[in-house]
Amino acid sequence: MQIVILLYDRFTALDAVGPYEVLARLPGTTVVFAAERPGVVRADTGMLGLTADAALGDVPHPDIVLVPGGPGQQEQMADGVVHEWLRAADAASSWTTSVCTGSLILAAAGLLAGRRATSHWLALDELSALGAKPVSERVVIDGKFITAAGVSAGIDMALELTGRIGGAELAQAIQLGIEYDPQPPYSAGSPAKAPRDLVASMRARSRRPRPAADG
Amino acid sequence: MQIVILLYDRFTALDAVGPYEVLARLPGTTVVFAAERPGVVRADTGMLGLTADAALGDVPHPDIVLVPGGPGQQEQMADGVVHEWLRAADAASSWTTSVCTGSLILAAAGLLAGRRATSHWLALDELSALGAKPVSERVVIDGKFITAAGVSAGIDMALELTGRIGGAELAQAIQLGIEYDPQPPYSAGSPAKAPRDLVASMRARSRRPRPAADG
Repeated sequence: MQIVILLYDRFTALDAVGPYEVLARLPGTTVVFAAERPGVVRADTGMLGLTADAALGDVPHPDIVLVPGGPGQQEQMADGVVHEWLRAADAASSWTTSVCTGSLILAAAGLLAGRRATSHWLALDELSALGAKPVSERVVIDGKFITAAGVSAGIDMALELTGRIGGAELAQAIQLGIEYDPQPPYSAGSPAKAPRDLVASMRARSRRPRPAADG
Repeated sequence: MQIVILLYDRFTALDAVGPYEVLARLPGTTVVFAAERPGVVRADTGMLGLTADAALGDVPHPDIVLVPGGPGQQEQMADGVVHEWLRAADAASSWTTSVCTGSLILAAAGLLAGRRATSHWLALDELSALGAKPVSERVVIDGKFITAAGVSAGIDMALELTGRIGGAELAQAIQLGIEYDPQPPYSAGSPAKAPRDLVASMRARSRRPRPAADG
């Protein structure tokens, strides 16, 4: 089984590396990090580079496609090489997945029309204008499309996907291998749980494009 | 503030990238991935390369040192350039930290003598022979030393550290930014929670060196 994780300039590293750490442990699986051009791709902070070992053209038919999000998502919304690759890859994939604002790229490429999907909480509303149906859940499954909420949600998504592919026992073994027994020292990981003032100030400071419905 | 994350051949990627994703969001902070020699360092699966932007000699005095774990840890246990760098960096650091079996490297360098520390559950016992006091907790703080359990525990560790450096509000904002509201689809993330048979079979298959106490 081949899993391709798309990289592009200013992606968010944990969006990609969280699911990778789970999915790379599936027996008989190869994970390939791929970008328009192979080489080092810098994450959104500028402080981390991941290697794209392949060009998109080298991996046209992955079994699983994974699209991370990040501030660079906004430069991946226009039709072009990445969208063409996504559409062709999706035509043959078993699963097409995203983390965070990666779902906006999938939607912009026309792959989530009429589908239930999620995204980072600050970007969730943007899915509607792209033809998808926004759902405020951590992992949303609609047919072969699995979308995860912001950044760290990719780990939960990958475990869910692992269970569907390889069964619960395998997923549990991988969960134990990465000791995923989360104990966050604060309970502020979603807009429903975080202090209301914090949510409001982050919404106000967000550089997300304002959806038409708000304007 | 400068944070240096040590890379070495066959590290586990999420050990490094989980905490990075949290700590890089601290205001006024630079995270530097560093290795004995700069360039691409491959993770344990061989399927992912991260760029070490600096040689260890370029970053002698970080405010925070972070050592990830991974199968390659076993080649980092002998004294040499990495241990010398760790001892000199620790002499001036505010915090010296590890994820997973990274604590074994810190201990082998002589930095955890008499200290309470944790590690991946399959490696926890090995800390004793290296002079540390193994503690089966997800994040263990002893003075300026913070050690985290296996792989994904680095995210919790980094949030804990963020709270201590920048206060609870900042840590909560970062938690909300990465939407860290974990909802694992299984409850098998620690040996205490996972099915007993799974824990036993993973212990049996583990390639960890057998501690003297067991032999």
